[in-house]
Amino acid sequence: MVQAYILIQTEVGRAGDVARDVAEIEGVTQAEDVTGPYDVVVRAEAEDVDALGRLVVARIQHLDGIARTLTCPIVNI
Amino acid sequence: MVQAYILIQTEVGRAGDVARDVAEIEGVTQAEDVTGPYDVVVRAEAEDVDALGRLVVARIQHLDGIARTLTCPIVNI
Amino acid sequence: MVQAYILIQTEVGRAGDVARDVAEIEGVTQAEDVTGPYDVVVRAEAEDVDALGRLVVARIQHLDGIARTLTCPIVNI
Amino acid sequence: MVQAYILIQTEVGRAGDVARDVAEIEGVTQAEDVTGPYDVVVRAEAEDVDALGRLVVARIQHLDGIARTLTCPIVNI
Amino acid sequence: MVQAYILIQTEVGRAGDVARDVAEIEGVTQAEDVTGPYDVVVRAEAEDVDALGRLVVARIQHLDGIARTLTCPIVNI
Amino acid sequence: MVQAYILIQTEVGRAGDVARDVAEIEGVTQAEDVTGPYDVVVRAEAEDVDALGRLVVARIQHLDGIARTLTCPIVNI
Amino acid sequence: MVQAYILIQTEVGRAGDVARDVAEIEGVTQAEDVTGPYDVVVRAEAEDVDALGRLVVARIQHLDGIARTLTCPIVNI
Amino acid sequence: MVQAYILIQTEVGRAGDVARDVAEIEGVTQAEDVTGPYDVVVRAEAEDVDALGRLVVARIQHLDGIARTLTCPIVNI
Repeated sequence: MVQAYILIQTEVGRAGDVARDVAEIEGVTQAEDVTGPYDVVVRAEAEDVDALGRLVVARIQHLDGIARTLTCPIVNI
Repeated sequence: MVQAYILIQTEVGRAGDVARDVAEIEGVTQAEDVTGPYDVVVRAEAEDVDALGRLVVARIQHLDGIARTLTCPIVNI
Repeated sequence: MVQAYILIQTEVGRAGDVARDVAEIEGVTQAEDVTGPYDVVVRAEAEDVDALGRLVVARIQHLDGIARTLTCPIVNI
Repeated sequence: MVQAYILIQTEVGRAGDVARDVAEIEGVTQAEDVTGPYDVVVRAEAEDVDALGRLVVARIQHLDGIARTLTCPIVNI
Repeated sequence: MVQAYILIQTEVGRAGDVARDVAEIEGVTQAEDVTGPYDVVVRAEAEDVDALGRLVVARIQHLDGIARTLTCPIVNI
Repeated sequence: MVQAYILIQTEVGRAGDVARDVAEIEGVTQAEDVTGPYDVVVRAEAEDVDALGRLVVARIQHLDGIARTLTCPIVNI
Repeated sequence: MVQAYILIQTEVGRAGDVARDVAEIEGVTQAEDVTGPYDVVVRAEAEDVDALGRLVVARIQHLDGIARTLTCPIVNI
Repeated sequence: MVQAYILIQTEVGRAGDVARDVAEIEGVTQAEDVTGPYDVVVRAEAEDVDALGRLVVARIQHLDGIARTLTCPIVNI
């Protein structure tokens, strides 16, 4: 299992909608609006790195209002 | 009360309009055009962090010509 | 109460130590190593924005191995 | 007369000191701590762009605790 | 007189056109395509900082194919 | 002969298509999807720096789904 | 098995040494100097994301002359 | 022959020295202080991309006061 933070920049005026919509995607465990360079911080999990990539590109990035995402896999060092 | 600087990147050719329009929003106390990575520097105040977030997303980002905003809350350390 | 994500860049080779040390600071509720532009993602809470600023500058930034932090307050839009 | 915002990144743990010290420099009219990618937002004025450059490089950057500054001259478009 | 470098990011596929078009604007003394984070490096001059700001926002940014510009005034320190 | 890495940011939801399409361009020797600030990492070669610039602007940037490219020529120091 | 590109920023004047030293680390399959925002592009592989994180933090970042690394895991979308 | 702009970030307080010193390096044709995200803009030329890389890493980066350089080769598209 791989877990990751996904830092989302939304289109202007869409932060609230995006946080609500992304929270309903399977594999997403947390989605919150923030201020600063990113607009929504998401926590998600998937079976492996490839599944995580598909979750981001095929599911999260297909929502309306997403401008850019930055995936940060959690590692146990 | 929370105060913040909001650093705005406008769409090309729109810096002057945006500074004028954003200055009329309630809670905005200052709005000036600048050169560099940002196009307009705004100073605003709101009752708390949530109200500040709403001011940015629901009011400022709904103006024409805004590409991206970066909110920097002022803190007393 | 204000909650925030704090995205930390560590000095080279220090990500593991920083995650362990920051997790012991009062107000920090989560601290995990990640790959990408940031090295550690922290979740913290404080009474208000000023207290959050002090937590970051006076406590987290005083740990060994921290190069730069980026505080992203959570907002309810 | 040229006015500018100067966005300062401080060394870790030094934001409070820097804001206090920079406020005492002649030509600086405002200096406040913020959270986000920058740590201190300064407003300053100088006779022309060259004098502004000297104010930043010879005065502000010589303070202890400054990591990087970003000067954004105010323009009337 | 104020001189500046203006670092331009173009829309995809437009770097060549932009360099040619921007070179014909009054006040622009040099415009070249580059590789890296920027696509075109321009050198321009104007009477003062305000006129430089107007040159960028009202003339350069109105060309087709410009995504973002970054103005860096030259200073004599 | 000049070789380069080209770091591509795609439009949302398009990373897989872009990697497949770019791999078919003459001069491209490798194209892979990645997570993080970039979406596709490409390796390409051309006769000289000018030809490399044309490969990027006239061929790669003309594909659907490309938001931004960053060319990093390989050097033998 | 997880593969990744690791984009390295070196301390000034150290790009050549870093590329040579990092090439000798087990798991690194390629290391080349580049110009642009990064100085060395590395390709590496590890058993899983955690092992990749350890390779970067415990091995690559312990070399002399490394200022910052950015790990981009390769994904099959 | 390859020409390039080299965008330099200096250590704090060192912009003036760096511009003077870098101007004396063989192959450098122009060096000016600027305000904004970079501190000195340099124009240089070398026989090919490899020689340009060596000029930057072995000569320019060995000057005192340089924090980071960004090389942008000029291309004729």
